[in-house]
Amino acid sequence: MLTRIDHVGIACHDLDAKVAFYETTFGLTVAHRETNEEQGVHEAMLLVAPGSYVQLLQPTRPDSPVGKFLARNGEGVHHIGYGVDDVEAALAALGAKGVPLVDERPRHGSMGASIAFLHPRGVGGVLTELVQSLP
Amino acid sequence: MLTRIDHVGIACHDLDAKVAFYETTFGLTVAHRETNEEQGVHEAMLLVAPGSYVQLLQPTRPDSPVGKFLARNGEGVHHIGYGVDDVEAALAALGAKGVPLVDERPRHGSMGASIAFLHPRGVGGVLTELVQSLP
Repeated sequence: MLTRIDHVGIACHDLDAKVAFYETTFGLTVAHRETNEEQGVHEAMLLVAPGSYVQLLQPTRPDSPVGKFLARNGEGVHHIGYGVDDVEAALAALGAKGVPLVDERPRHGSMGASIAFLHPRGVGGVLTELVQSLP
Repeated sequence: MLTRIDHVGIACHDLDAKVAFYETTFGLTVAHRETNEEQGVHEAMLLVAPGSYVQLLQPTRPDSPVGKFLARNGEGVHHIGYGVDDVEAALAALGAKGVPLVDERPRHGSMGASIAFLHPRGVGGVLTELVQSLP
């Protein structure tokens, strides 16, 4: 079902500063930036390898999921995103296995992807995202 | 410097149960298992894509780093491992940039790799591992 580690989602307080850090320290380059108002994040995708990114996330407001995460945990890994070929089929299969879903249906993710989150309580404490990239 | 997302290191209480969960739920397969007494972990590497793994970690003792992590945080993402071509050269370059290192020199990691950890306080709260795989 999982085709790759699509991205590591990392929560931070200052997106520009953290982007500069990853560029300077590790030589990564920004592939994409966007603001997702629905999810309440400013984000940057830094390319590690084809199809694999570090996703840096800064909340647009303190009561967004990433804003609450930062208040509770401080900066760090927020979620892991895995590639799938068909996110709707994956959600149906996982729901049938009793895996608790955050998203019953796919929604809009980074770079035009269709994405869905699984609840961390069903995946050993890991907020897990499925990512069907644009063809 | 970073060539791929080598693995996501996930701390768990029961390695066999968590391996079975990832196999059954996501269709991953175990590529390797070992116990690393120095690090105090039983671990399993589950293949996601060539060179990319979910690494499940169960402490061998409660006072190991992963044991302490579990006591403090519960199950979840413990660290992120990135591939590098030359871990010694990478450590030297990062040390020269002032990145705080857990390991001044490489040590033994999973599947015969040479690995080194960077301190999370220098990497935005993310315990970050460099992995030079066996050729």
